[in-house]
Amino acid sequence: MSGDLHAAIDRLAEFNDDPAAGGITREVYTPTYTAALEWVAERMRGAGLQTRVDAFGNLWGRWEGAEPGAPRVVTGSHVDTTLNAGRYDGVVGVLGAIEAVRSLRDAGFEPGRDIEVVAVAGEEPRFGTGCIGSRALVGALGPDDLDALLDRDGVSLAEALRGAGFDPARIADARLDPAAVHAFVELHIEQGVVLETHGEAIGVVTAIAAPHDLRLILRGAATHAGATPMALRRDALAGAAEVMTALERLARESPSGTTVGTVGVLRARPGAINVVPGEAELDVDVRDSDLAAREAVVDGLLAAAHEICERRGLELEVQPIVQDTPVVCADEVIAAAEAACEELALTFRRMTSGAYHDAMIMAAEVPVGMVFVPSAGGVSHHPDEYTAPEQLDAGVRVLAGVLARLSQNPSR
Amino acid sequence: MSGDLHAAIDRLAEFNDDPAAGGITREVYTPTYTAALEWVAERMRGAGLQTRVDAFGNLWGRWEGAEPGAPRVVTGSHVDTTLNAGRYDGVVGVLGAIEAVRSLRDAGFEPGRDIEVVAVAGEEPRFGTGCIGSRALVGALGPDDLDALLDRDGVSLAEALRGAGFDPARIADARLDPAAVHAFVELHIEQGVVLETHGEAIGVVTAIAAPHDLRLILRGAATHAGATPMALRRDALAGAAEVMTALERLARESPSGTTVGTVGVLRARPGAINVVPGEAELDVDVRDSDLAAREAVVDGLLAAAHEICERRGLELEVQPIVQDTPVVCADEVIAAAEAACEELALTFRRMTSGAYHDAMIMAAEVPVGMVFVPSAGGVSHHPDEYTAPEQLDAGVRVLAGVLARLSQNPSR
Repeated sequence: MSGDLHAAIDRLAEFNDDPAAGGITREVYTPTYTAALEWVAERMRGAGLQTRVDAFGNLWGRWEGAEPGAPRVVTGSHVDTTLNAGRYDGVVGVLGAIEAVRSLRDAGFEPGRDIEVVAVAGEEPRFGTGCIGSRALVGALGPDDLDALLDRDGVSLAEALRGAGFDPARIADARLDPAAVHAFVELHIEQGVVLETHGEAIGVVTAIAAPHDLRLILRGAATHAGATPMALRRDALAGAAEVMTALERLARESPSGTTVGTVGVLRARPGAINVVPGEAELDVDVRDSDLAAREAVVDGLLAAAHEICERRGLELEVQPIVQDTPVVCADEVIAAAEAACEELALTFRRMTSGAYHDAMIMAAEVPVGMVFVPSAGGVSHHPDEYTAPEQLDAGVRVLAGVLARLSQNPSR
Repeated sequence: MSGDLHAAIDRLAEFNDDPAAGGITREVYTPTYTAALEWVAERMRGAGLQTRVDAFGNLWGRWEGAEPGAPRVVTGSHVDTTLNAGRYDGVVGVLGAIEAVRSLRDAGFEPGRDIEVVAVAGEEPRFGTGCIGSRALVGALGPDDLDALLDRDGVSLAEALRGAGFDPARIADARLDPAAVHAFVELHIEQGVVLETHGEAIGVVTAIAAPHDLRLILRGAATHAGATPMALRRDALAGAAEVMTALERLARESPSGTTVGTVGVLRARPGAINVVPGEAELDVDVRDSDLAAREAVVDGLLAAAHEICERRGLELEVQPIVQDTPVVCADEVIAAAEAACEELALTFRRMTSGAYHDAMIMAAEVPVGMVFVPSAGGVSHHPDEYTAPEQLDAGVRVLAGVLARLSQNPSR
């Protein structure tokens, strides 16, 4: 099984708009993406699934069960990528789900509820906002968003939809009926080093952390680095250094134990070795599955930043970026994943997903759960992203076990 | 007098390769620079000076004194600029010197020693290294440098010299005979806020701080900002924040009281809000007129950086950039400047120059001194650079007083 899956992952990686750069570039609604999706659909049909593409470009493959009309079990992820990315992020949850279905079928399993595999359109933020496919499924994308969301070349989501053969006026047709879904399960690479560090095969996700992102802009005075005594400078970058240290301390000391705080982007201006930086811009990401703990860190950070800027004679501007709600996974999915791991004698740990996923968006309307496999070195969104074939194999086996259990469980 | 000088500064600002950007761009050896220099030469001749351009492109204007052969008094600065710069940096020391000569002549003064005004070629670092004109005068530029020093377009100093009509093989002809110079005096804008802060008209420079510049590169692991717990991350930017805070503390606590430490350039990579920075690059500038105090801060910084990186599991690379020697100004020039201020009833302060200047390079071979006028807000290398006409006027009067005194002093 793992041989097939690994070969399929390599084959899908050939749908790539920038092979010279060393990674995979396959953004949603591009011709390359559409060709890749058609290849995935063909692979679904090869596993006996009935395929359709909905009005937003989400690809579905259904295995009909013995109980027509019962809420179905949905599993999947995404096959779009960021720029120069790896080949596992998202792809594992789609191609792995097809392999899980194939293995269940080969083993003679007969589902009760329908099992449906989905490749959700646009998890990666081509248009700034991520998870647009799942947002469309839960009705969280409005007509205004279609024109307002632009990619880096200024192409709107509406234009991109039209270009890929969809009618922006009809996206409501893609709306999922929550009552028709028993649960959504997503297999994914961890994108972190927790499983690798602990030498465990499977992560059973109990909660999905959500980000509170904001931009802090500190403004001081861009003066000569040699000619401005320490006591007379208003150094925006020195202030930013203090803010970053405060963020790290607040996140480390957060009582939830799961809060993370990161400054991933820092711009110091004007950026000359002999000029005191007059402006520093920090993009801050704070995440937790515990909303109160996360907000306490953000509040602490803002208080610290105000105090630091006040003391240093700097101006502080705070710009909101995003503030999503963390998700608690469904007990039924967690229990099914743990039972599958125990049956397969695989080591596992209950853990929080620090990254967000389509499951976080789907959770607004349906019960969700996730299964993680390890990421080598925690590397993701990079050509070096890697999960070994036997690790993928373990994930597919667990997913198959989860689908089997959920498909047989009585309706809520 | 100030009206003339201010009008001349405005006129010189019209020699500009990028007027649309709002500042002055006039790099050495460009056609625009050559045209500007010819305009300055004409202005020198209008003040009765005999002009010549040496083999490196330094422009000289001589006023012959009563003692032919006695070591002469040299004053001047530079008329090249950085990109989109102000109109005062350097220019004040050249056009102001011409006005000082004119005022002495108008007042009937007759010099003993020759007085010579110089516009030194290339103080700003078009070719990476600053002060190339004064380096050529003191013999600090070799034939290898001519090919090795490149501008941002890859043009070598040798090519640029040829393009401006000079023969790179003959630059030794520009070598100054140190025995023929009594002293070099440079009038300059402060480029800092010390005079403005204290409400003083004139800075009498007693020492010129020199930079020790280095680049620190911290390397950790670029992992997912959500999926990497605080305890498992190797965040290069968080380490850099701690290094910056250590530098600021070391500079503030330096016993000399004049050490400054700056991180003017910081690059965090890969630079995405959802990725822990795996690499941070800091360009560090430490300056002092007190060499031992400066080196103690650099040593303390490197020790702190090593400890911080060791503790955080980061790799540290240290790349040297430049390490110049601070200069003590000549007592005779300091005394002449103080006497001139007192005679003119101008407030003044003895101070260190934090910025480096041609005088720092010239000091390797001849006695030097500098006179500062205030910079509004300390702004320099920026279109907003400004010194008021009456402040320039005070500087020119003091320079005239210094030239008169030095020209009459007996030979050493």
